[in-house]
Amino acid sequence: MSDNLFQDPSTRTELSSLGEFGLIERLASRIQLGQPTSVKGIGDDAAVIDPVGLHQVVTTDMLVEGVHFDLSYMPLKHLGYKAIVVNLSDVYAMNAEPRQVTVALALSNRFPVEAVDELYEGMLLACKNYGVDLVGGDTCSSRSGLVISVTAIGAVRPEDIVYRNGAKDNELLVVSGDLGGAFMGLQILEREKAVFTETGAQPDLEGHDYIIERQLKPEARRDIITLLRSLEVKPTSMIDISDGLASEALHIARASGLGVRIYDDKLPIDPTTYQTARDFNLDPTTCALNGGEDYELLFTIAQSDHEKIKGNPSLTIVGHMTDAASGYSLVDKQGGLHQLTAQGWDAFLKRG
Amino acid sequence: MSDNLFQDPSTRTELSSLGEFGLIERLASRIQLGQPTSVKGIGDDAAVIDPVGLHQVVTTDMLVEGVHFDLSYMPLKHLGYKAIVVNLSDVYAMNAEPRQVTVALALSNRFPVEAVDELYEGMLLACKNYGVDLVGGDTCSSRSGLVISVTAIGAVRPEDIVYRNGAKDNELLVVSGDLGGAFMGLQILEREKAVFTETGAQPDLEGHDYIIERQLKPEARRDIITLLRSLEVKPTSMIDISDGLASEALHIARASGLGVRIYDDKLPIDPTTYQTARDFNLDPTTCALNGGEDYELLFTIAQSDHEKIKGNPSLTIVGHMTDAASGYSLVDKQGGLHQLTAQGWDAFLKRG
Repeated sequence: MSDNLFQDPSTRTELSSLGEFGLIERLASRIQLGQPTSVKGIGDDAAVIDPVGLHQVVTTDMLVEGVHFDLSYMPLKHLGYKAIVVNLSDVYAMNAEPRQVTVALALSNRFPVEAVDELYEGMLLACKNYGVDLVGGDTCSSRSGLVISVTAIGAVRPEDIVYRNGAKDNELLVVSGDLGGAFMGLQILEREKAVFTETGAQPDLEGHDYIIERQLKPEARRDIITLLRSLEVKPTSMIDISDGLASEALHIARASGLGVRIYDDKLPIDPTTYQTARDFNLDPTTCALNGGEDYELLFTIAQSDHEKIKGNPSLTIVGHMTDAASGYSLVDKQGGLHQLTAQGWDAFLKRG
Repeated sequence: MSDNLFQDPSTRTELSSLGEFGLIERLASRIQLGQPTSVKGIGDDAAVIDPVGLHQVVTTDMLVEGVHFDLSYMPLKHLGYKAIVVNLSDVYAMNAEPRQVTVALALSNRFPVEAVDELYEGMLLACKNYGVDLVGGDTCSSRSGLVISVTAIGAVRPEDIVYRNGAKDNELLVVSGDLGGAFMGLQILEREKAVFTETGAQPDLEGHDYIIERQLKPEARRDIITLLRSLEVKPTSMIDISDGLASEALHIARASGLGVRIYDDKLPIDPTTYQTARDFNLDPTTCALNGGEDYELLFTIAQSDHEKIKGNPSLTIVGHMTDAASGYSLVDKQGGLHQLTAQGWDAFLKRG
């Protein structure tokens, strides 16, 4: 998709022609700070943030070429967007408001300046959409692939912070949006890549727009944080779904010293995800439980808050917490209990 | 040096036997928070920091195997130590106190668990020495080399922050410690590696302890920040020396809209650095100006503060700021003026 960027000498500007400082200046010139709390952005030894009396949350995620993304089907602009979004998702999962990000990039000479521009275009678009400032970072050489490390910083009133370990017995387990889509999008992209490699046939992505977008351009659920505030529901625990519902539910249960029960027939699965899983001879439930990269929010609420969220199309009650002795279970459509395990994304891929 | 860690199957634990979560738990179990401002460390979607009314500074640096370090002579423990210290140095350069770090690591299967332990041992030692908490991060696979991205967060009273752009005409340019040592240490290590590769002879590092330590285990100048406070000297601008004195002095001059003049015969050069440069047929002045990685502090002070720092063995006045029209100059021992340029570390290496 971005082949031109890498190969066409007429439009290719070598990174070496800019140098590290030149590249930083080029990037800095495109960045405008919008957050009143961003006192100083790029251009000094460190960025400066005014916390205005709030607590700060900090999270870091690294994306590595060949491990987390494949540039043969991941446009650089989308990659930049996603690199920011996955970090913001962690900030929202603390019930905090993201405000600043720093970006460290390792790039090989294979990348022309134009490729770096595209990557930043995506990152800055995400920053704009979520009202976040890019305040600093580092850019350096790599001997091989592209590595992106993003740190996001958010602000939150101390009394609003939601940890993973606050769930209580009997509370409802709620998930936003739908599950398994990002994983099935990846399966489509991998299949079309294999077909292209073998036969040279152009990718057939027809009818899979939704799940491909879930994989290539995920969004963080800021809207859910806002919704919960407007409903006056404060989750007792919360986590974002990067490794799959099963894995994240286990995190909440273990951190809270509880068991958890998830109901197979409650899992929110988009029809496209469902049909694609069937086409691939995969079990849609397994995809929803272990697919990962959905970046939905998973949280627990008190039973007394049930009325407030009931019927909301963005929220699904998928189960409830139990005492620790009851363990971690998936309840199937016939009422049978199965051990809930965190296969995670990697393990699942190997099986798939 | 760390060959055993990589090769001896009897002491090698595969990363895959732990998995990502196992690795995180292993690391987390060794980490104790000491900062009262670290509300929550590893183990949630994000770390939580209480800024206690102060501004926060944030800085990120990435270290890439084969670009920033060579594991054939860089022990992993030292590498971990250095990865933290170079970030703390940026925080001190803002006149701030570092308090928290996050660490993102990309690792290939080549690294056994024991290697990761050594790396963290060095990182945690640096954290302990500087009173900083490791509060979060990310660990993921790499297809090739080791990539370390550290983000450091510090706290500072708004009125104490020192930027690069506050220097004024005629102010004194002051540097801590001595210069060029880290660069000459690297030359020794590179030479001995080449000898070992060609002849199998063991490295001869005799008599070069100081400069090798400058390269392998640098320290951040917290003591200088403390010293300046006790002397009641507030620098008007400050930067840490990672790319070489010339490059950093130009940063201060340009950011402040001034010129700068540096005096060749004022440069603080350790006798070991001087002699080693001579042995390598390099000009010690050039090494001090462009060597880089010294992690000393470079700052400007008002002429009226001269008496306060005069004669202090940790501080050397190497020049002064001028009006912008006077440009950027190096004054040689005969009083001749030379254009001061930022060759930086990479350019210098290619010439060397």
